[in-house]
Amino acid sequence: MSASMRIEQALDQAVAYAERGAPPLLAGALRYAVFPGGHRIRPSLCIAVAKACGDHDPEAADGAAAAVELLHCASLVHDDLPCFDNADLRRGKPTVHVRYGAPIAVLTGDALIVLAFETLARTADPARLGALVSIVSRAVGAPGGIVAGQAWESETAVPLTDYQRAKTGALFVGATCAGAAAAGFDPAPWATLGDMIGQAFQVADDLRDILCDAEELGKPIGQDAVNHRPNAAALLGIGGAKARLERLVRGAVESIPDCPGADALRMQIQAQVAQLFPKQLAQAAA
Amino acid sequence: MSASMRIEQALDQAVAYAERGAPPLLAGALRYAVFPGGHRIRPSLCIAVAKACGDHDPEAADGAAAAVELLHCASLVHDDLPCFDNADLRRGKPTVHVRYGAPIAVLTGDALIVLAFETLARTADPARLGALVSIVSRAVGAPGGIVAGQAWESETAVPLTDYQRAKTGALFVGATCAGAAAAGFDPAPWATLGDMIGQAFQVADDLRDILCDAEELGKPIGQDAVNHRPNAAALLGIGGAKARLERLVRGAVESIPDCPGADALRMQIQAQVAQLFPKQLAQAAA
Repeated sequence: MSASMRIEQALDQAVAYAERGAPPLLAGALRYAVFPGGHRIRPSLCIAVAKACGDHDPEAADGAAAAVELLHCASLVHDDLPCFDNADLRRGKPTVHVRYGAPIAVLTGDALIVLAFETLARTADPARLGALVSIVSRAVGAPGGIVAGQAWESETAVPLTDYQRAKTGALFVGATCAGAAAAGFDPAPWATLGDMIGQAFQVADDLRDILCDAEELGKPIGQDAVNHRPNAAALLGIGGAKARLERLVRGAVESIPDCPGADALRMQIQAQVAQLFPKQLAQAAA
Repeated sequence: MSASMRIEQALDQAVAYAERGAPPLLAGALRYAVFPGGHRIRPSLCIAVAKACGDHDPEAADGAAAAVELLHCASLVHDDLPCFDNADLRRGKPTVHVRYGAPIAVLTGDALIVLAFETLARTADPARLGALVSIVSRAVGAPGGIVAGQAWESETAVPLTDYQRAKTGALFVGATCAGAAAAGFDPAPWATLGDMIGQAFQVADDLRDILCDAEELGKPIGQDAVNHRPNAAALLGIGGAKARLERLVRGAVESIPDCPGADALRMQIQAQVAQLFPKQLAQAAA
């Protein structure tokens, strides 16, 4: 089965568990927040690492990938709320709070966070569950996960590296480390790969926010300027940001630890990262 | 060490982990949401059950108790938000969103949920972590945990039993089952105790909402009527609700499974439940 099918199936199983008997609006919002997905880049990375490590426990790898994506979806639902970005569109459709109201949107995010841990407990080898819960908690919670990243936006003085590492990088680190841990490998050497891809993704996102049109992006453009968020393309210029992105991708590929499937993983990461480039840049590079 | 000291210490350790290096407002809000606490009735119940089961792994019991209380605090922070109860006061002080703003309040709830699972992973025996994560997830998430309970309030047709069981009962069931699991006992026979105490607590809460003054309650009274929520004292009358409460406490005490400390647990539960009665009823009963 392809990694993409594994991810969709694992997510469907997780959401199906949460839906059954739940209040109908919440059940509907849970599925709406998770399907159809975006690029599923974090769970793809998680499964790619598990495969590179030999894919010794596919059920655990799929569960870890689903957990990471559920947490990503939860963060999108909460970030879009009126008290944060007040976004109307996400992945080309109305955001959860626009469709279901703010109360259900808050609860959907909460339920997705809980469901991520429930999914780990249901799928992980008991000997590895502790490592997986720790990896995922660190990626999402305080002090340095995506929740902390979002919270930096409420501060007047924001350390840029801490902010970006928490807001975007932490869940990528969680994805690579969880993939390794699910396959029975030591997760620590896989953190750099996640960190570099996370940074690359952030730069690509900043470029897209400036270069794309709303249709390509599936959400309004120019939101960083509107929300006074730092943007690498605004700080370094388009050319500088593109050079930084290329450096990060090279660093990511070089950081891959020794493992049975290292070569295949290198190629896959280069191919996946290419998808991140905004159309305009990809065409210019072609 | 007393159960109360164990709980405060375990909560302090958990919050200290999340604070270190976190954005300052989020760090402050996390501590503000957890300390000083209310009656800590759920974690007390968790530790009481672990003790009745022999308290074979106090660190795990304390971690489970802290996890349950962190999740309770998370639910209070989110329930108080403007899009739900829009409450200004909680435990006699301004609610988290009044003090820190809605964005930090949303993130505080999220971070507390994650911290609960992190705490379980840090403290549980690896052989029991899976059971503990499952118990706690079921108590909090969809389809039947407190998040689902809150979501029933967004529905037009609300099955009263499902609503109350999810909104209040589920986390009490989580507390008793987690206490047993942390001590290495089969959690399933402990669910009824949690369920009955949860129902009793709900009836007591309904009575307090009608009978107490705001000072005794630490929050505004009469909120069920304001928010169109079902209230047992309004439905059954004060006398009917009091009789129901007494029946539930008897049922709870009778449900306690065979275990080394069953007698002590029976006495403790009767004493704790007595604290739940509103002053006015306790005086009338004296």
